[in-house]
Amino acid sequence: MKRLILAVLALTTVLLASAQSRIVTDEVASSVLGRPVSVTVFLPEGFNDNPDTHYPVIYMLHGLYGTHRDWVTSGSMQGVTDELMASGEVRPMVIVMPCAGDPDVHHVQNGYFNMPDCPYEDFFFGELIPAMEAKYRCGGSKGQRAIMGLSMGGGGTIVYAQRHPDCFSSAYGMSAWLDNKHREVRGADVPDSKLTITDNSVREHSALDFMDRADESTVAALKTVKWFLDCGDDDFLLQLSMDLHMKMREKGIKCELRVRDGAHTWEYWHTALRIALPFASRNMQP
Amino acid sequence: MKRLILAVLALTTVLLASAQSRIVTDEVASSVLGRPVSVTVFLPEGFNDNPDTHYPVIYMLHGLYGTHRDWVTSGSMQGVTDELMASGEVRPMVIVMPCAGDPDVHHVQNGYFNMPDCPYEDFFFGELIPAMEAKYRCGGSKGQRAIMGLSMGGGGTIVYAQRHPDCFSSAYGMSAWLDNKHREVRGADVPDSKLTITDNSVREHSALDFMDRADESTVAALKTVKWFLDCGDDDFLLQLSMDLHMKMREKGIKCELRVRDGAHTWEYWHTALRIALPFASRNMQP
Amino acid sequence: MKRLILAVLALTTVLLASAQSRIVTDEVASSVLGRPVSVTVFLPEGFNDNPDTHYPVIYMLHGLYGTHRDWVTSGSMQGVTDELMASGEVRPMVIVMPCAGDPDVHHVQNGYFNMPDCPYEDFFFGELIPAMEAKYRCGGSKGQRAIMGLSMGGGGTIVYAQRHPDCFSSAYGMSAWLDNKHREVRGADVPDSKLTITDNSVREHSALDFMDRADESTVAALKTVKWFLDCGDDDFLLQLSMDLHMKMREKGIKCELRVRDGAHTWEYWHTALRIALPFASRNMQP
Amino acid sequence: MKRLILAVLALTTVLLASAQSRIVTDEVASSVLGRPVSVTVFLPEGFNDNPDTHYPVIYMLHGLYGTHRDWVTSGSMQGVTDELMASGEVRPMVIVMPCAGDPDVHHVQNGYFNMPDCPYEDFFFGELIPAMEAKYRCGGSKGQRAIMGLSMGGGGTIVYAQRHPDCFSSAYGMSAWLDNKHREVRGADVPDSKLTITDNSVREHSALDFMDRADESTVAALKTVKWFLDCGDDDFLLQLSMDLHMKMREKGIKCELRVRDGAHTWEYWHTALRIALPFASRNMQP
Repeated sequence: MKRLILAVLALTTVLLASAQSRIVTDEVASSVLGRPVSVTVFLPEGFNDNPDTHYPVIYMLHGLYGTHRDWVTSGSMQGVTDELMASGEVRPMVIVMPCAGDPDVHHVQNGYFNMPDCPYEDFFFGELIPAMEAKYRCGGSKGQRAIMGLSMGGGGTIVYAQRHPDCFSSAYGMSAWLDNKHREVRGADVPDSKLTITDNSVREHSALDFMDRADESTVAALKTVKWFLDCGDDDFLLQLSMDLHMKMREKGIKCELRVRDGAHTWEYWHTALRIALPFASRNMQP
Repeated sequence: MKRLILAVLALTTVLLASAQSRIVTDEVASSVLGRPVSVTVFLPEGFNDNPDTHYPVIYMLHGLYGTHRDWVTSGSMQGVTDELMASGEVRPMVIVMPCAGDPDVHHVQNGYFNMPDCPYEDFFFGELIPAMEAKYRCGGSKGQRAIMGLSMGGGGTIVYAQRHPDCFSSAYGMSAWLDNKHREVRGADVPDSKLTITDNSVREHSALDFMDRADESTVAALKTVKWFLDCGDDDFLLQLSMDLHMKMREKGIKCELRVRDGAHTWEYWHTALRIALPFASRNMQP
Repeated sequence: MKRLILAVLALTTVLLASAQSRIVTDEVASSVLGRPVSVTVFLPEGFNDNPDTHYPVIYMLHGLYGTHRDWVTSGSMQGVTDELMASGEVRPMVIVMPCAGDPDVHHVQNGYFNMPDCPYEDFFFGELIPAMEAKYRCGGSKGQRAIMGLSMGGGGTIVYAQRHPDCFSSAYGMSAWLDNKHREVRGADVPDSKLTITDNSVREHSALDFMDRADESTVAALKTVKWFLDCGDDDFLLQLSMDLHMKMREKGIKCELRVRDGAHTWEYWHTALRIALPFASRNMQP
Repeated sequence: MKRLILAVLALTTVLLASAQSRIVTDEVASSVLGRPVSVTVFLPEGFNDNPDTHYPVIYMLHGLYGTHRDWVTSGSMQGVTDELMASGEVRPMVIVMPCAGDPDVHHVQNGYFNMPDCPYEDFFFGELIPAMEAKYRCGGSKGQRAIMGLSMGGGGTIVYAQRHPDCFSSAYGMSAWLDNKHREVRGADVPDSKLTITDNSVREHSALDFMDRADESTVAALKTVKWFLDCGDDDFLLQLSMDLHMKMREKGIKCELRVRDGAHTWEYWHTALRIALPFASRNMQP
C-alpha cells in the first residue's frame, strides 16, 4: 500500500512542481472610490521562501465586462507564466490583476479612466500601485514596472503609459481599444448608463488623438517606454492598432507591431502572453 | 436605448463569431462494458447547416485521472481549434473525446486497454467508433480518421495505432505513457486496486516492446500511419518518447519527434494542439 | 582506408539526403519579348524517379533589381523547402522562379506588367506558364497552381491573382509593393528611364485601386482565391498591406494578414517561406 | 533626375538600415599554433560610434570541414542577428567566429581540442579570447561571455563549457557531436590522417563521459552555466543530445533540450539562431 501511495504521490508531485507559483485574491481599500477593489495576484515560485527578494511587477488589465479573475480563469495565465519562468525566458515577477469592473454585477462600472463618481485612474496610480508594491515587495520604479492588457485593458495599458511614461518600462496592448471615434453607437439616448460613461471615457482618452497632439517633449518622454501592439487579423479593432503604430512611427517612436492569426478571443490573448511576458521581462531594469 | 443594445449586440456577435463551433455532451450505451460511456464532441462551424456534409474525425484521448470533459475545460481545445479552422490551417472536422475514467469518482476505472471487467479497447473499436461516426456523419475509413492524446491517452493513441494501423491515418502522442517498465511501483501489494490494474495494462501494452517485436509485415503496416511524438524537455516521461522515436527510426518507420519547452502540464498539451491539429488535418485523405 | 572513406561518405550522404531536391536553370524563348527569359526551377526529391507523377506548381517572384537567381542565392529557399517537404508540411511541388529583370545589367528592364516594348504579363501567362507546366509535369489548372513573391514580386503576385483569379488557388504577397501613389518621386524628369517605366507600371496597376473599383462579379471571382499578406512591422511598405487587407475585409473577401518582426530584408522573406509554402500547399486541390 | 536618384537612394537606404552591423575578417597571430588564425567578427550597429561602450561577446563555432566564414556565408547569421537586435530581443553584442579548420585546404586540420602539433584549446583560451576581447571591447568575464556552435562546434561548445565553466555564462550546442563511441569508423588504418586525429580527439573529449565522471564539485561548477541542446529529429547525431540531457537531468543540472523538425542542415542551424541568440543574451550579466 505504501508503494501505491508513493506512486500516486510521485505523479502528483510532478504535476504540482510546475505550479509552485501561487494565485492569491486580495483587496485594496480605496478612499477615492469609497469601496474595496478586488485584485488577483500572481506570486512567482519561491516568493515566500525568499522574504528579502524584491521583484519586478507587471500590471495586467482585463477587458470590458471582465473582472480581476479573467486572466486566470479565461486566460490561463498561470500555466504559461510558470513555463516561461521555469525555462528562464521570463524573470520571476509579481503580476497584479486589478478589477476595473464589478465582480458581482456584470456590465457595471467598467473602465480605467476617471469617470463621474469613479476616479479609477486616480485609484490606480494613487492607491493600487503603492499598496501592491509595498505588500508584495515589487516594483517601486519605472524600471521595475510593466503594464499590459487586452481590449479595454489594452487601451488602458497604452493610455496609462502615454499619460504616465515615467511609471512603466514597457507597455503591451493586445487587441487594444484605443479610440472610439469610428463606432456610431455611443448610447447617447441612455446618457447616464454605465456603458455610455465607459464608452465616452474611451473616446475622451483616445490614444490616437494623444499621438496627434504630442509635442516634442511628450515625444521625448514616450521614447523612454518600450511599446508593443498585438492584434489579430480578424479582430474588429485591428484598424486602431495599425493606426497607432503608423502615428508612432511617423514621430520616430519605436513601437513593435504584430498582427497574428486570430480574432478578439481568449485564445489570442493567451498566446499573446508568450510574447508579452518575455518582452516585459527583458525591458525591466536588471 | 436601441442603439445601446445594438452596441452590446455588436460586441457579443463578434465574440461569438469565432465560436460558432459547438461542444456537445453525448453518451454511448456500451454492451461490452455494461454501462453508458460519456463522450464530449466538438462539432465544427456549419455542422448543422450542412446536413449532407461528411467530415473527417479525430479521437482525442485524456490522461490518467481524467474524463471526457478535460480537453474542453482544462485543455481549452475549442478556442485553438476555432482559430485554426477559421484560417484554414485545419479542415472542418468532428473531434470525439470519450471518457476512459469515471466521471463521478476520481481515480477509478481508468485506461484504454482491455482490463478485467472492463474491455475498453473492445468498446472503443466495436462500439464507440461506429456509434459516433454514424451519428455525427464523420470518419468511416482510415483516411478520414486520426487519433491523438496526452499522457495515458498518448500511450493509448500510439498503442491503438500500432495494433490497428488500418484504422487511423495519423497518430499524435503527447507526453505519452508508452511503457511502464522503469517505474518501480506497480502497486503489487494492492493487487486488485484500479490503479494497479491500469498500471499493469500499460506495462502489458508497452509500445516499446511492440516495436522490438515488430516483424517485417508489421513494420510495413506501421508505415501506412503518420506518427508524431511530442514531449516536454522537463517531462518525467520524456525518455519514453525518445526511445520509441529511435526504435522506429531504426526500423525505417518515419516518426516526427518534437521536444519543446515544458513539463507534464495542460499548457504543454494546449500548445501541442497547434501542431497536432494541422498534422492530423493534412494527413487525412482529401 | 576503406573505413575512412566510408566515414566521410556517411557524413556526406547524410548531408545530401536532405537536399535530394534539385535546382535547375532553364530558359524560355519568348516571342512576345523577342528574347529568352531565364528561369530557376526547384524540382522536388523524386522528380526524376517518378516520370509519371504530375505536381502542383508555385510561381515565386523576385523583387526590384532582382533576378531569377535571388530566391535560391539570397532567400535560401531550397533548405527550408526541403525541410518542410521532408516532414510533410508541404507536398512535393515544382517551384518556378522566372526572371523579371535583366540578369546581366543591374537596374534594367524590371517589372511584371506590360510595359512599352516589354509585355511581361503577356509573356507570363501566354508563354511562361504553358512552357514550364508542359516541361516539368506540373500545374495545368487553378487548383494546381499558386503564386507568391516579395516586394515588387509581392505586388506582381497580388495583381496577377486579382486580374487572373481563374489561374491561381492562392496568392501570398510578402512586403508587397501594391501601389505607388504615396511615393513622391516617380522620375518624371527622366521620362523614359527603365525605373520610371517600372514605377509607372506599378502605379497604373495599383492593387488598392483594383479593390476600390471591384464590382460584385469581380468580388465573387476574388473569393475563389486564398489571399495572404505578410509584411514586417519595420517595413517601409507596411501601410500598403494593411490598407489592402482592410479593403478586402470590407468587401467580405477573406485575406490573411500577418505583421511579423522585421523590415524589408531577406531574413524576413526567408522566414515567410515557412508560412507561405504550407499555405500554398494546403490550398492546392488534392 | 535628382528626384530619381533620391528614389533609388531611399530604397537603398532602407535596405541598408537593417544591416548597419558589420562583418569584419581578422586574424590572430598564434604563438602556440605557430601560425595566424582567421576570425570573422560581427560588430553590432553603433559599434564604431560608441567607442566607450563595452559589449558582451558570443563565440560561435563552425562544424567539421568548415571555416570561420561559414556562419556568415552558409548560416546567414547577420540577417537574423540584425533583426533580433533591432527589436530588442537580443542585446547589442560582438560575435566572434574563429577558424578551426584550414581556410584554404578543405578537410584539413580540424577540431577544437589539443591535438598533436595543434593545441587548439590552448590557443582558444590563451590567445584568441584575450586578443578578441581587448581589440573589440567585449567580454572580460564569465557574465559577459557565451558560447555556441554546430555539429563539431556544438561538441566544442559543450566540452569547452564543461572544462571551463568559469568562462561562459551559457553554452548552446546545435546538432552537437558530443561523443564518438558509437561510430565504428575511426580511420584506425590511416593512423596519422587529419580526420583520424580529429575523430580521436572527439572520442577522447566525450561530453557524455565527462558527465559520468563528474563529482560533486564539478556538478556544482556546471550548475553555474546555462545549458541548451538543440537537435533535429532527423539528425544522425540526435541520440547524443538526448543522452547528455538525461545525464544532466539525473545529476540535477538544468539543461534545456529542444528537438525541432529537421536534419543536419544549415536551415536547422540558421533557425536555431532565433532561439540561441536570445538565450545567450538574457543569460549575460546585465
